Amino acid sequence: MKKKHNDSQEKRPLLLTTGEPAGIGMDVVLLLAAENKLQDFLRPIWVTADANAMEKRADALIAAGVLKICPTWQTFDIDDLKEEALTKQISQQSTDTDQAFVLLNIPCDAPVTSGQINIDNSAMVAKQLEIAHKLATNQTVAAIVTGPLQKSALIDAGIKLPDGTMFSGHTEFFMQQSGCEKVVMMLANQAMKVALVTTHLPLKDIPAAITAENVRQTVQIVIDDLREKFGLTQPRILVCGLNPHAGEGGHLGSEEIEIINPVLREFINAGVDISEAMPADTLFTSRHLANCDTVIAMYHDQGLPVLKSHGFGDTVNLTLGLPYIRTSVDHGTALDLAGRGGASATSLYQALIMANEMADRSIVNIPLA
Amino acid sequence: MKKKHNDSQEKRPLLLTTGEPAGIGMDVVLLLAAENKLQDFLRPIWVTADANAMEKRADALIAAGVLKICPTWQTFDIDDLKEEALTKQISQQSTDTDQAFVLLNIPCDAPVTSGQINIDNSAMVAKQLEIAHKLATNQTVAAIVTGPLQKSALIDAGIKLPDGTMFSGHTEFFMQQSGCEKVVMMLANQAMKVALVTTHLPLKDIPAAITAENVRQTVQIVIDDLREKFGLTQPRILVCGLNPHAGEGGHLGSEEIEIINPVLREFINAGVDISEAMPADTLFTSRHLANCDTVIAMYHDQGLPVLKSHGFGDTVNLTLGLPYIRTSVDHGTALDLAGRGGASATSLYQALIMANEMADRSIVNIPLA
Repeated sequence: MKKKHNDSQEKRPLLLTTGEPAGIGMDVVLLLAAENKLQDFLRPIWVTADANAMEKRADALIAAGVLKICPTWQTFDIDDLKEEALTKQISQQSTDTDQAFVLLNIPCDAPVTSGQINIDNSAMVAKQLEIAHKLATNQTVAAIVTGPLQKSALIDAGIKLPDGTMFSGHTEFFMQQSGCEKVVMMLANQAMKVALVTTHLPLKDIPAAITAENVRQTVQIVIDDLREKFGLTQPRILVCGLNPHAGEGGHLGSEEIEIINPVLREFINAGVDISEAMPADTLFTSRHLANCDTVIAMYHDQGLPVLKSHGFGDTVNLTLGLPYIRTSVDHGTALDLAGRGGASATSLYQALIMANEMADRSIVNIPLA
Repeated sequence: MKKKHNDSQEKRPLLLTTGEPAGIGMDVVLLLAAENKLQDFLRPIWVTADANAMEKRADALIAAGVLKICPTWQTFDIDDLKEEALTKQISQQSTDTDQAFVLLNIPCDAPVTSGQINIDNSAMVAKQLEIAHKLATNQTVAAIVTGPLQKSALIDAGIKLPDGTMFSGHTEFFMQQSGCEKVVMMLANQAMKVALVTTHLPLKDIPAAITAENVRQTVQIVIDDLREKFGLTQPRILVCGLNPHAGEGGHLGSEEIEIINPVLREFINAGVDISEAMPADTLFTSRHLANCDTVIAMYHDQGLPVLKSHGFGDTVNLTLGLPYIRTSVDHGTALDLAGRGGASATSLYQALIMANEMADRSIVNIPLA
């Protein structure tokens, strides 16, 4: 492999998975398409979905008065094509059209009813993720943007992760498929970017998870991805302590002194622009954030309430540490809104913008022939 | 005792303690006085300080070009007067003047040098708190507003709390003096009010401190004080869970199910407008905050980063559960700025505004003669 900065002439597609077909994943794609927002990007938008279900969903949204006009798209079957042939075929056929998006048809096993989960369609949801992983790994697409899935439906259908354990989410799926030991969850909006050392753990289990190795791996992944996927040559990072007031010199906890700061000093000594552990309640103020590309918080409720309070609707979820770019909407399947209207496409739009910007700025791994 | 709503005609003073004489406590009072901001309040402002030190500090700030004009004030000795006589004397002498504030002279034991702590003056700092407590308890003043003290200086001087243990802060001092079993720390600014179930604990010690009794006492104090000190007859309260996603139905921790929600349901069943445990990263968004008077967070870094990110400079610290109103600046002694300029009086001004508003809205306990 050799690396080169992404050529701005080379506009590989963004791949968007609609996820759970009974949820609002298709609705928000149609909303953006109808507002001509998918055409904002200088890249093709490829969308994985069931072709029949997408047409029916468009009809339902028109009938409900949500869509005034029906967007148009081109459908391709993916099952019987190799990716290289697929790319060629799509690019040949779609250059002279102005369709809103390319639909990669992944048929459902059972009919789709808006708002009603059918676990017979869980395999189709998993299939979307497999195809996304494959097309991103071989660099057919520049980035993956994931719509919402219903975790419980995949679990009920017995869908497994690559390591044979029960399905537990997009992130674990892509991580295992890519052979990554660790990935980092980052949330981003206009106000700030926050990466987490630990994510979905009960509060009582957090201190044991704050190990030197975990902190070190998290920081390294954040640095690598800010450089390679955000194009920041010298990223500026601020890190929260684990305890209130960052432990106040050991009076309010010792993890900063014993675990976190020694690791951070390794990076500081290596020339990285990163802080030692800071009190979370002073870090998240404008005078600090103004001089910072990313905050690393130790746990979920230390970093995410403050981030989401500054822009819930436009928050994007990113997975750092994967060999490709992956962004995600920050909402669920909203089953009660599917096919009826009321769903907001803001988060999907922001996730596409973020993926597009990262794809423009990223350093691409060019596989050697 | 009988209770009555505070008569808006009755304008008892606000008592402001300047705290550590080597710090910026006196500076910020002088800054507000010079800008005529102490005169904004329809109440007299009483300030505890060393009279000589205050004059010297004003001279230093004029010499430094920080003060363009020197504010004027009236000085009274407090040591040799009973409070009733003091009040009468001050009100008689000060009605026909337009001084910026009334200085209650509490002499230091050693000369004051800006920026240099002298533990010989720690007794004078403690004396300010004693007098504040006394004047608030007998309702000579309507509220206490505390400036910053240097905790370590009082500890080094051997200052004890009423129970004989080492001095540990304003809050503990007022709590013990008032015979309260528990008080609640609340921070407030224009964006929101956040009360905490636990405050300055290492993260690992938080789960054990989230007991039914602690949650119940905290909620009760918040309700009582919102009613009695903020004049809200039916306060609306939202409560964070302990765990991320408020435990997600038990998948991410059980404290919500086992401890927090049963207590909250007691209050809901009693007609209180309070939520069950909510995910912190959705609670702190505008659609929830818009319909809420106060948030109760389970711990420091769950509630305060988000609050301070929406207005660090104007954040006020309140102690709920005391028999009187107490607000505080949200900054330290800033020794390097004392007498030199650079200190901001915003936090003190906000603390005065909050104390004044609470004094106007509060229900006053009238001691039976």
